[in-house]
Amino acid sequence: MPVNLSAPKAQDLHPVAGVRIGVAEAGVRKAGRKDLTVFLLDEGASVAGVFTENRFCAAPVQVCREHLQGGSAVRAMVVNTGNANAGTGAEGLARARATCAALARELDVDAAQVLPFSTGVIMEPLPVERIEAGLPAALADAQPGHWARAAEGIMTTDTLPKAASRRVEIDGRAVSITGISKGAGMIRPNMATMLGFIATDACIASALLQPLVKDLADHSFNRITIDGDTSTNDSFMLVATQRAGHAPITSLDSAQGRQLRAALLEVAQQLAQAIVRDGEGATKFITLRVEGGRTGEECRRVAYAIAHSPLVKTAFFASDPNLGRILAAVGYAGIADLDQTLIDLYLDDVHVAVRGGRNPAYREEDGQRVMKQSEITVRVVLGRGDAADTVWTCDLSHEYVTINADYRS
Amino acid sequence: MPVNLSAPKAQDLHPVAGVRIGVAEAGVRKAGRKDLTVFLLDEGASVAGVFTENRFCAAPVQVCREHLQGGSAVRAMVVNTGNANAGTGAEGLARARATCAALARELDVDAAQVLPFSTGVIMEPLPVERIEAGLPAALADAQPGHWARAAEGIMTTDTLPKAASRRVEIDGRAVSITGISKGAGMIRPNMATMLGFIATDACIASALLQPLVKDLADHSFNRITIDGDTSTNDSFMLVATQRAGHAPITSLDSAQGRQLRAALLEVAQQLAQAIVRDGEGATKFITLRVEGGRTGEECRRVAYAIAHSPLVKTAFFASDPNLGRILAAVGYAGIADLDQTLIDLYLDDVHVAVRGGRNPAYREEDGQRVMKQSEITVRVVLGRGDAADTVWTCDLSHEYVTINADYRS
Repeated sequence: MPVNLSAPKAQDLHPVAGVRIGVAEAGVRKAGRKDLTVFLLDEGASVAGVFTENRFCAAPVQVCREHLQGGSAVRAMVVNTGNANAGTGAEGLARARATCAALARELDVDAAQVLPFSTGVIMEPLPVERIEAGLPAALADAQPGHWARAAEGIMTTDTLPKAASRRVEIDGRAVSITGISKGAGMIRPNMATMLGFIATDACIASALLQPLVKDLADHSFNRITIDGDTSTNDSFMLVATQRAGHAPITSLDSAQGRQLRAALLEVAQQLAQAIVRDGEGATKFITLRVEGGRTGEECRRVAYAIAHSPLVKTAFFASDPNLGRILAAVGYAGIADLDQTLIDLYLDDVHVAVRGGRNPAYREEDGQRVMKQSEITVRVVLGRGDAADTVWTCDLSHEYVTINADYRS
Repeated sequence: MPVNLSAPKAQDLHPVAGVRIGVAEAGVRKAGRKDLTVFLLDEGASVAGVFTENRFCAAPVQVCREHLQGGSAVRAMVVNTGNANAGTGAEGLARARATCAALARELDVDAAQVLPFSTGVIMEPLPVERIEAGLPAALADAQPGHWARAAEGIMTTDTLPKAASRRVEIDGRAVSITGISKGAGMIRPNMATMLGFIATDACIASALLQPLVKDLADHSFNRITIDGDTSTNDSFMLVATQRAGHAPITSLDSAQGRQLRAALLEVAQQLAQAIVRDGEGATKFITLRVEGGRTGEECRRVAYAIAHSPLVKTAFFASDPNLGRILAAVGYAGIADLDQTLIDLYLDDVHVAVRGGRNPAYREEDGQRVMKQSEITVRVVLGRGDAADTVWTCDLSHEYVTINADYRS
């Protein structure tokens, strides 16, 4: 039961000139599921990405990094669900390369111009022959208007497809931005989410794309957590097809650069938050805002300590204002010289704790009122400095345990 | 449903000369519960302790540290359940001091000779008047043989009391060691468990007690985790009453020192493991052994990453050999230069992964067989060095969510 999230409507997702998408049922793990998606990019597109920091990164992540570093122009991305091709050793690498080679043959490009993505069960051999067999159907399906199909095609334990789209005007030209994401568990991205793809037809210098995708990730996919488990396959890709016809953006600090970044960030944050809203078993969407830290990094440490505390998460699930659990999490966040007597805690507009102790004016019924909402902002003021940061998470429910105890069955 | 744990029998717990224990029902939070325990120490006892590293440490922890640093001979310890007196600011400190003063008056000692301990709900005012009113009954109850009652008296969400006892002979004299512990959730001790008390009548130089209690904690209470939540109230106390009559131990490296340490460690490990066995909702007891690390610290990082992964914990609950989740946790444990191609994974005697990939000889039914056991050892070999360490944990079940969603109701 996702929190205030609904499936995107196909007509709300703007096509991006220079991108065609095809989806097929390849039977990677189960029959009758859209489990194979290809993105076909016209010549001239620029591509950048960020990937998981998990040292057990999956074979496709290793191949993506290799192909991007090699500098060949990317012409296609291929995504399978049902199998993560992670923890699969040298054979896994060979199979990820075989997937690229098969699609490259169909498109008459180099294998190094194809980026592979996999998501699903870890430590099982990738059935590469089924993927190869499914490629012709995916290619036959390719259309600019297939973003909604792609959002479905990359789902695993997601209960809803996730997509977002914006149109902005730059120098009098319409620029489209459309993206999709997937993920519901094993979510604590540490570069990017499980899988996220955003494309725009904006014209922007290729050299700006890598810093831009990192910046976007740091303010969207790298600020969400469901269960603190960093996936082996996290990938977030940004494509600029350079087709919108305006003068190319050569600086992210220009008016046009800032405008494009803002619109991209809206899409990235919406996609990232959609993953939390669809968090496995989630019943509440929680915004954790930590202020008054010395550095952004220590604000994030506090926010993640709260976000990962099973006790805090179960209290949210129960709508129980057992808010001392939040203070306890602040206390073990690893800030050695934290002074508890400087800390204030707010739940939305309710001032719960003052200088490390219960606010005398705090009434349990006020806390209770906020805890019953489906969207809650927790604000912690550390009283140490001027830095602040925000992390989004969800609660921990029976359903999370059910989903993850039964995932493979 | 604790994992292979039963309530201690009173007759199995050796009294410790110089220690008397009394328990009463003070109605701290609920009526009809043993919620107030006093330990009375004869003159001459040495006491040392380790406490939570949570920066939001509770008022009683602050007072304990202050009294121990002051150097007055400790003559009593008083423990209440039902209220943690944490997140309670200056008023909480005043109430912890008032508790000490009240017991000191009854015993005609200084308030600084009393150590206070509290456990229960955070951020609620401590009902100190109920504790004061309950003290006479607790004192009237004081007996050397009341260890089993004390084990009951300090329980909160524990389903069973926890105690352990040993008798060893040092220089021809019988030496008794008896201890109790409590805790089932909010368990990731980072100095000591929620509450642990061990007493011995051994004769040992007072100066050795503090390094000894730290050493014991580091190999017992500091190696367990249930939910990664470090409590605000963790305290582990070691009492030596100096009454056994053997020549005083003046070095932990002497034969007698090593003998005493070994016996104390057995008791401490049994008490620490009992907390995991009684972990909230636990159905499995998991030993995480990480070998081949460069340092013990990196082995512990890997072990805790596995121990705190909700995905790993739910897989154990489901008896599902979805063992790629363990590799993923190893990958995000924060070892920047970890090489996945050197890593082996074992589940008891089953060799699951070889050099970062699935062992070709691994059969799912072998993994399944081990996963169904109530006690499982996960062994990860990092292939980087000679260090090793062990952490104990439990699984994550529906019951954990139920207990923590309902704790206050």
